[in-house]
Amino acid sequence: MQSVVERRNTIPILSNVLIDAAATGSVKLMATDLDLQIIESMPAVSVEVPGAITVSAHLLFDIARKLPDGSQVSLETADNRMIVKAGRSRFQLPTLPRDDFPVIVEGDLPTSFEIPARTLAELIDRTRFAISTEETRYYLNGIFFHVSDEVLKAAATDGHRLARYTLPRPEGAEGMPDVIIPRKCVGELRKLLEDVLDTNVLVDLSASKVRFTLGGEFGVVLTSKLIDGTFPDYSRVIPTGNDKLLRLDPRSFFEGVDRVATIATEKTRAVKMALDTDRVTLSVTSPDNGTAAEELPADYQASGFEIGFNANYLKDILSQIDGDLVELHLADASAPTLIRKDDKSPALYVLMPMRV
Amino acid sequence: MQSVVERRNTIPILSNVLIDAAATGSVKLMATDLDLQIIESMPAVSVEVPGAITVSAHLLFDIARKLPDGSQVSLETADNRMIVKAGRSRFQLPTLPRDDFPVIVEGDLPTSFEIPARTLAELIDRTRFAISTEETRYYLNGIFFHVSDEVLKAAATDGHRLARYTLPRPEGAEGMPDVIIPRKCVGELRKLLEDVLDTNVLVDLSASKVRFTLGGEFGVVLTSKLIDGTFPDYSRVIPTGNDKLLRLDPRSFFEGVDRVATIATEKTRAVKMALDTDRVTLSVTSPDNGTAAEELPADYQASGFEIGFNANYLKDILSQIDGDLVELHLADASAPTLIRKDDKSPALYVLMPMRV
Repeated sequence: MQSVVERRNTIPILSNVLIDAAATGSVKLMATDLDLQIIESMPAVSVEVPGAITVSAHLLFDIARKLPDGSQVSLETADNRMIVKAGRSRFQLPTLPRDDFPVIVEGDLPTSFEIPARTLAELIDRTRFAISTEETRYYLNGIFFHVSDEVLKAAATDGHRLARYTLPRPEGAEGMPDVIIPRKCVGELRKLLEDVLDTNVLVDLSASKVRFTLGGEFGVVLTSKLIDGTFPDYSRVIPTGNDKLLRLDPRSFFEGVDRVATIATEKTRAVKMALDTDRVTLSVTSPDNGTAAEELPADYQASGFEIGFNANYLKDILSQIDGDLVELHLADASAPTLIRKDDKSPALYVLMPMRV
Repeated sequence: MQSVVERRNTIPILSNVLIDAAATGSVKLMATDLDLQIIESMPAVSVEVPGAITVSAHLLFDIARKLPDGSQVSLETADNRMIVKAGRSRFQLPTLPRDDFPVIVEGDLPTSFEIPARTLAELIDRTRFAISTEETRYYLNGIFFHVSDEVLKAAATDGHRLARYTLPRPEGAEGMPDVIIPRKCVGELRKLLEDVLDTNVLVDLSASKVRFTLGGEFGVVLTSKLIDGTFPDYSRVIPTGNDKLLRLDPRSFFEGVDRVATIATEKTRAVKMALDTDRVTLSVTSPDNGTAAEELPADYQASGFEIGFNANYLKDILSQIDGDLVELHLADASAPTLIRKDDKSPALYVLMPMRV
């Protein structure tokens, strides 16, 4: 809950978590930043008097994490205060009324499908590093989901690199509107998925809202507004005619790039790749720090040439390749390069070169 | 080495490490910030041509840590460059001549004694948290060492709390001048001690310099300028007539203080202790965050009263008490309180109260 709640809020109740205890013995917690809302249900040992109240999420979290493991905690409201008791400790926290707590109105969510949590987690891992952080390009500040033919595609880009993940269209996703899921929702969702990797996640959405339901009765419901913008037609950027194929071990490649980039300064993160038959030479030259070079064995048969990439962007992509080989499909020193594990991989990356 | 080297230097060579390879096959590394100097010797696999050069410490460190474990590294100088080769990697780093590398002139260090590394490490742990960070009170920015009668005493204070550690005077320390060892030297020394806890450390000092020799032939020599100032006569602050004795479990005490302090805001870190027969009640009241209280069982027979402390300062001290009991010797709500494990403990703490 508390990671959804922003640290600084001009509206005091947004710092709070809503606690709603039902006579049935279940307790519902809810937090929001007005764009993203999280609801978690859990069983109480007992509910003596049903009721709902809001208190500071961060305070309650800090208190809870400092209590000894296995502590029994009681919550009680009286006179605009919530009394928290555990062991020999007793806290009185200021409260705000539950009726003032803002709720995201979901409206109709006509599209509804299930997706394995593990697939959704992989989709996020493979794409989110490419999400733009430029606030002015707000329509790039999330992962774009859209269906096309029989597949569901997720894409993220910051204009320098693109990551796309494709999976068979889940049943119920046909006719789904194109949506952009904001970065914060993506991050919170990824954390929550870690605990339910062997289950299915229910996704309900409209053109303006998305809701993820994880883990059944005592589970978590994450609801987010979608980014109100148009994601660019990224398919134009994915090269189809790149005829120079380089294949090598992604781990050695990553480590080589990382080593030669030691020399690179903050300003010039560029690493140069010189391609020759069955060999790649990585190099960096810095006016301040000298030079670095490393030769890597590779599978390469096309004509030799040189191309430069941002070392960090290249490392971001390589760290998402989990096999023993990565494919780079190149054209020339100024053309976008396509990177993927192989042609069966659901993930595909495009990286713009840098002049070196 | 590289943690002695400052990240930003106006004098370029201060960013460098001096590497000196002798025909005997030993290599000496040296780094300095002009106040603190570290020298480490190690055996090379082979020295083909003896010589000395300086290169960027942080660059060389970053390169070294990115090389695979077990890599064989060769260093070679040519044309104002140092060539570093390892596996398929090759770096050319800019160099500066060894003769420009500044060396701290130790002069005569007439006092010389040995101290077990474990004792020195404990002495540092027990005192350094109390070192002042106020630059204007530069004479408090270190640990004060002085001999008196048959003991060596180390003390640190920031005016709010005092930590003192006493040990039998090592042979050779008689007549030693009073010295203040700067915080950075203390920190680097503590890290180095971790690797040699079962050995003795040789300490050589004068009124202006101190040298620590750790680990024999292939060991480390740390030389530091001392703080040129007068440490206040702290013994006046140590209360001797405090007649109210409180004894309790330091761990429960720490955790209780930590819990009630959750409510405290940055401005008011004060926690109130109400002492009654065999009981302490900790409490915090915050205008924004409500109240917190916790009752702890304790051994206390004197008359009841209330006193306040900075929660963080109290936690710093309690985390240095490693037994099942801590003694607090109190006088009244405005008098310094003496804290120690027991009367046999080499460590003693004084904490000023806060108004609550």
